[in-house]
Amino acid sequence: MTILFDLEPILKGDRRAIARAATLVENRRGDALLSQLFPHSGRALILGITGAPGAGKSTLVDRLVANFRADGKRVAAIAVDPSSPFTGGAILGDRIRMMQHHADDGVFIRSMATRGAMGGLAAATADMTLLFDAAGFDVVIVETVGVGQDEIDVARLATVTVVVLVPGMGDDVQAIKAGLMEIADLFVINKADHPGAERLEREIHYADIAVPVLKTVASEGKGIDELVQAVRAVPGQNRAEERWKRRMREMLRERVMEKLSWEELDLAAADVATRRRDPYTLIHDLVERFFAGKPARISD
Amino acid sequence: MTILFDLEPILKGDRRAIARAATLVENRRGDALLSQLFPHSGRALILGITGAPGAGKSTLVDRLVANFRADGKRVAAIAVDPSSPFTGGAILGDRIRMMQHHADDGVFIRSMATRGAMGGLAAATADMTLLFDAAGFDVVIVETVGVGQDEIDVARLATVTVVVLVPGMGDDVQAIKAGLMEIADLFVINKADHPGAERLEREIHYADIAVPVLKTVASEGKGIDELVQAVRAVPGQNRAEERWKRRMREMLRERVMEKLSWEELDLAAADVATRRRDPYTLIHDLVERFFAGKPARISD
Repeated sequence: MTILFDLEPILKGDRRAIARAATLVENRRGDALLSQLFPHSGRALILGITGAPGAGKSTLVDRLVANFRADGKRVAAIAVDPSSPFTGGAILGDRIRMMQHHADDGVFIRSMATRGAMGGLAAATADMTLLFDAAGFDVVIVETVGVGQDEIDVARLATVTVVVLVPGMGDDVQAIKAGLMEIADLFVINKADHPGAERLEREIHYADIAVPVLKTVASEGKGIDELVQAVRAVPGQNRAEERWKRRMREMLRERVMEKLSWEELDLAAADVATRRRDPYTLIHDLVERFFAGKPARISD
Repeated sequence: MTILFDLEPILKGDRRAIARAATLVENRRGDALLSQLFPHSGRALILGITGAPGAGKSTLVDRLVANFRADGKRVAAIAVDPSSPFTGGAILGDRIRMMQHHADDGVFIRSMATRGAMGGLAAATADMTLLFDAAGFDVVIVETVGVGQDEIDVARLATVTVVVLVPGMGDDVQAIKAGLMEIADLFVINKADHPGAERLEREIHYADIAVPVLKTVASEGKGIDELVQAVRAVPGQNRAEERWKRRMREMLRERVMEKLSWEELDLAAADVATRRRDPYTLIHDLVERFFAGKPARISD
């Protein structure tokens, strides 16, 4: 952690310096840089936008970016694709739609590439938000395209999380509401001009959910001002410690995984597949070796 | 790993012994037992059923269980709920529907409870399939309710994976097909009597996908015989080594995570949230301590 980076271009918002740093972070080689940037972070609003495919999240993000820009804010947007097979097609659409902002120096768009099976998507995304935060962006929007645990982990890293619903999802609505309550600071019923919007709103109210519900028609820019106001009213900063707990667990998990010797494990797979070796004893011995006599304590 | 269990009741299919073992496995205390059971495993067909919410997977599983039973096979079914907020409601429905099989000694139903943020769902599910396999069940069906990376990881542990699609999912279909190709051995278009089934089938064919496509109306039992035949025709056992590679990685990941000192990390979160300590240096030092001077090699 002794490599020293020239932070000035990043802190001043130089786009090429930020892009280079983002690549470093995405390639998981950014820790030394991020360590230096860390004291400069903590000012941005990290805004998570999540919800099922087809909910119109990308259009909503597009409108939010425009709204924050009109208010003079610098905005970074990260589109996260956790290699979910159900969302693979969405990122490209985002990119094309966001092109209109590319000429604007106050907007920086980045999509997170697919991560491997060993996870780390939440950690990588969190690092990326810290970079943009330190680089002076007032708002960092993290759009998670999909509905799985990965996306939930990513959503939890945000200061404020908006869950986007749409009318007409049928029987799944009840399940969606129940599980998303713990991460949602705000619900948005997008496509609120579609049939069923009123019913969806009533269902949420009947379910006795304490989370505010807003309605938008993102494609027409309706309800965006109200959404931005509601986002600003969420006291998200209070939960910084809780967020850092989750985030450091994610960081530790990722960094430990990188250190393990996967290749030798792979070599043993042939013997296990033919029942010549027992994987439980093999893994047990391996884990014992890693930790034997090592107190797992953090230095003060 | 020196505790010795009395395997006989499990190997003979005693339901209470299997239920106790399943609880041990679910509580992640089953390694010593699984190590002993391992040589008795490897005979069952592990059949993964995955797909989006609302695709009718539970009805399909129900019909498959009945079909295998009619053929004299003993069947275990595991319903996996990876705490996905979009699927939370489905498991209960499964349970109720499956009640009809509960009087049948040749059927064993188990749902996997929610796992914590540290993951391990795929490892826990894999261990559960090994238990049922060793207990002499001919078929172990793993139903993953949801669409995220967790479910994909679980699906990959199966010998044969069936991806269930339904007509009328609109724009998402293209994305679904693309991403699920790598895990699907078979596609099933369920609710094939609904409008759009033909179009969906055509779209799959146009997309030049080499995976066989079957049509079912699970609610009426249509297409189930053909599905079972198609499942049997998949040469899944060829990929045992590849599956064990993934599975052992998942095992190692889970077992290492259990060993880390999360509490002390949590205590540092307050200092990090107030920017008094830098999390990157903290995690870096911690990881160095874990692995310092320890060759991460597997013993022969």
